[in-house]
Amino acid sequence: MSRIAVYPGSFDPITRGHEDLIRRSLRFADRVIVAVAANSSKAPLFDLEERVRLAQKVLAGEPRVEVQTLKGLLVDFARDVGATVVVRGLRAVSDFEYEFQMALMNRQLHDELETVFLVPALHLTYLSSSIVREVARLGGDVGDLVHPEVERALKAKLAR
Amino acid sequence: MSRIAVYPGSFDPITRGHEDLIRRSLRFADRVIVAVAANSSKAPLFDLEERVRLAQKVLAGEPRVEVQTLKGLLVDFARDVGATVVVRGLRAVSDFEYEFQMALMNRQLHDELETVFLVPALHLTYLSSSIVREVARLGGDVGDLVHPEVERALKAKLAR
Amino acid sequence: MSRIAVYPGSFDPITRGHEDLIRRSLRFADRVIVAVAANSSKAPLFDLEERVRLAQKVLAGEPRVEVQTLKGLLVDFARDVGATVVVRGLRAVSDFEYEFQMALMNRQLHDELETVFLVPALHLTYLSSSIVREVARLGGDVGDLVHPEVERALKAKLAR
Amino acid sequence: MSRIAVYPGSFDPITRGHEDLIRRSLRFADRVIVAVAANSSKAPLFDLEERVRLAQKVLAGEPRVEVQTLKGLLVDFARDVGATVVVRGLRAVSDFEYEFQMALMNRQLHDELETVFLVPALHLTYLSSSIVREVARLGGDVGDLVHPEVERALKAKLAR
Amino acid sequence: MSRIAVYPGSFDPITRGHEDLIRRSLRFADRVIVAVAANSSKAPLFDLEERVRLAQKVLAGEPRVEVQTLKGLLVDFARDVGATVVVRGLRAVSDFEYEFQMALMNRQLHDELETVFLVPALHLTYLSSSIVREVARLGGDVGDLVHPEVERALKAKLAR
Amino acid sequence: MSRIAVYPGSFDPITRGHEDLIRRSLRFADRVIVAVAANSSKAPLFDLEERVRLAQKVLAGEPRVEVQTLKGLLVDFARDVGATVVVRGLRAVSDFEYEFQMALMNRQLHDELETVFLVPALHLTYLSSSIVREVARLGGDVGDLVHPEVERALKAKLAR
Repeated sequence: MSRIAVYPGSFDPITRGHEDLIRRSLRFADRVIVAVAANSSKAPLFDLEERVRLAQKVLAGEPRVEVQTLKGLLVDFARDVGATVVVRGLRAVSDFEYEFQMALMNRQLHDELETVFLVPALHLTYLSSSIVREVARLGGDVGDLVHPEVERALKAKLAR
Repeated sequence: MSRIAVYPGSFDPITRGHEDLIRRSLRFADRVIVAVAANSSKAPLFDLEERVRLAQKVLAGEPRVEVQTLKGLLVDFARDVGATVVVRGLRAVSDFEYEFQMALMNRQLHDELETVFLVPALHLTYLSSSIVREVARLGGDVGDLVHPEVERALKAKLAR
Repeated sequence: MSRIAVYPGSFDPITRGHEDLIRRSLRFADRVIVAVAANSSKAPLFDLEERVRLAQKVLAGEPRVEVQTLKGLLVDFARDVGATVVVRGLRAVSDFEYEFQMALMNRQLHDELETVFLVPALHLTYLSSSIVREVARLGGDVGDLVHPEVERALKAKLAR
Repeated sequence: MSRIAVYPGSFDPITRGHEDLIRRSLRFADRVIVAVAANSSKAPLFDLEERVRLAQKVLAGEPRVEVQTLKGLLVDFARDVGATVVVRGLRAVSDFEYEFQMALMNRQLHDELETVFLVPALHLTYLSSSIVREVARLGGDVGDLVHPEVERALKAKLAR
Repeated sequence: MSRIAVYPGSFDPITRGHEDLIRRSLRFADRVIVAVAANSSKAPLFDLEERVRLAQKVLAGEPRVEVQTLKGLLVDFARDVGATVVVRGLRAVSDFEYEFQMALMNRQLHDELETVFLVPALHLTYLSSSIVREVARLGGDVGDLVHPEVERALKAKLAR
Repeated sequence: MSRIAVYPGSFDPITRGHEDLIRRSLRFADRVIVAVAANSSKAPLFDLEERVRLAQKVLAGEPRVEVQTLKGLLVDFARDVGATVVVRGLRAVSDFEYEFQMALMNRQLHDELETVFLVPALHLTYLSSSIVREVARLGGDVGDLVHPEVERALKAKLAR
């Protein structure tokens, strides 16, 4: 039986922290589907197509990873792709609480779907998409924080 | 490839919360090894042999689960049994922080071992071995909190 | 002496979690006044009149509960209605901190007003108005999370 | 109907923070019963009788407050004295989590008993019995932290 | 060698809590530079010039304090003014986590810059610019929370 | 004016995390006094003299650092040595709350003493004396976690 994990998020944009989580997930999942959420409450820096495309480029070398668009409920998406596990990263207490609530909510909606939390690599624990956007916007160097493709896309986007 | 998960703890005694976590782990692991830790800093209510025996009785119906004694470092134990994943439950923020530190420490000692956190069933989130011991000691009913075998053992132990 | 409690919030919309808190408050208060706040920093899904009307429908069967609009400072409202207690629910650590600050601020503004925190029913701890809105928006079933009147209102609102 | 609240704890010894909580509780309860717990896991500085006696002296001027010994489960005690509310103070996040678990556990054991959390006076939020014992042990002045009776008892106890 | 500390923030508007932190910083720094951040993600109540001007008025009596505009990365600003220390206040756990992440991020960008956290005066721990704006907007008295100059500016701004 | 900082703790034993904090403190203090606390509630692994001696050996190369024994209240110690700043490390939320309470308590006892919190180097955030003792006790390698002198002392102590 093939185990499929879903890794949902905004990925605005995908960071080295996300990449790390995906590679860790491959230790217990046969396939990981990166689900880029369409409907974020706040206006994203990159639109949905750009976020999907960047994630695809960054993850091109991982044959067991696939990037898809997430439009409805995560639990419906998981059912459709046959996933039994949702993967999420934990960096901080505030992460933990929100994630905990979402995991319980998703379990109520789909009892067979198990949410699994992983700890990112230590040097990536301070990292988030919003910090990357902030540093890039202020002209800081994000070369250690994101893939070169993402760095290029940030520069192009913020130069406008 | 068979995926083996280790679930370490004191299990003093094993509760319905532990059982729940073990069954959830079987969703992404082929086998789960319950590792009962020998060296707790505080004096346990049940000695090591009792804790192992109770866990074995409670889990007798799960062919993919095994109970063992954990005497040295968790990372050495995991290497010996061929486990690639450590499973831990998260109930509260204070859990989270300690667990986070242990996960990072264990990763430094054994980079290939991934710690994975699960959320217990909602009605078991308030449950811990220490609350079970406290309620039993004060004469409360722990029938919903532990397996009947454990309830019997608690009564026998506390009657002395 | 009649004890009056105020339960302030956005109620956008009122959920089964709010209803639970209100019924718990009636254990130590003679009357509970649900105070629907007019001025939220973020744009609400339901406007003030709709939020008040939904709360009134949901709580119609509770003779000791009244729904009012809260337009100024909570402490002034409490003085006007003769309330001595403010009721708030606690679900998570992040709730706790914000609530703690507000309770201290309100005490400085009105020393006789005591803020009292309650724990919701366990199966409602993961519930919030924002999760309800999110699930409804994505087409999920919110029948267990809100009163049928609120479910209807959500469908009508989101169908537009 | 008379509303009775129980305020349980170790009170080793009673501090100005405890006194403050008790007076706040009298705003929504007709009577407050201070329940001094017999069975603490750690060895107390003052034995049970001393802790009860100190609380009684400190609270002698409050006709609506009574001090009793708590020997079994809190829920049984509450049933015996006809209390419908348990009062607890919240100072910090770590308090909150433990208290939250106990409130849920007690609710499972006795559904009609409501736990209610209060915020202490701001200048007492840093205060706890253990900090009082520590400061007194090191020769510091605890005159602002406890009642003069308690200060005397601490000096007598620690002089031995 | 003169030690220069930077105290960055939005200061929308400067509160008695900020003033307290600045005076505490002068205990270990020879000079404190208040760095008013230009680019906040949310629309500020006061524009950048107003926030700088208010801070300057409030701090006019402190010869060792200077107010400047912060437009790029904090680490670049600190290098330009020769600061070796960044000062931040800690009030709550949620503060702590965000501040912790920023401190680690800034250290990665500029290894010689040390972030130092201070605890505000107890009676100011509940205070923040957003609570001040909220109370003022609802017609509450902010005379204890901000300098008279800021109170005047809030009234003028909100009267419009 | 010479600025003296006190860094109090149990140092049972001193770790690479402590060393890191001490070096960071030298960025804003002229001298750092490491104050090894005599009276810990729990029985230490190393007695007071051993803990002082190990800290002295580890810090022998730092001319601006001095190791002393702390026997009474920290605030009295600070007054005696002329220190105006107390330095503490922050690793986790649970640290933060305890430290926050102690800082407020110490401020009440000695208003001129400012507590300053620092963030340890990222790769040392998971590190504590208790984890070092635990790993050493279980036969793990602590070579990256403590100075070679401390490693030797741990081996000698635990071999007994």
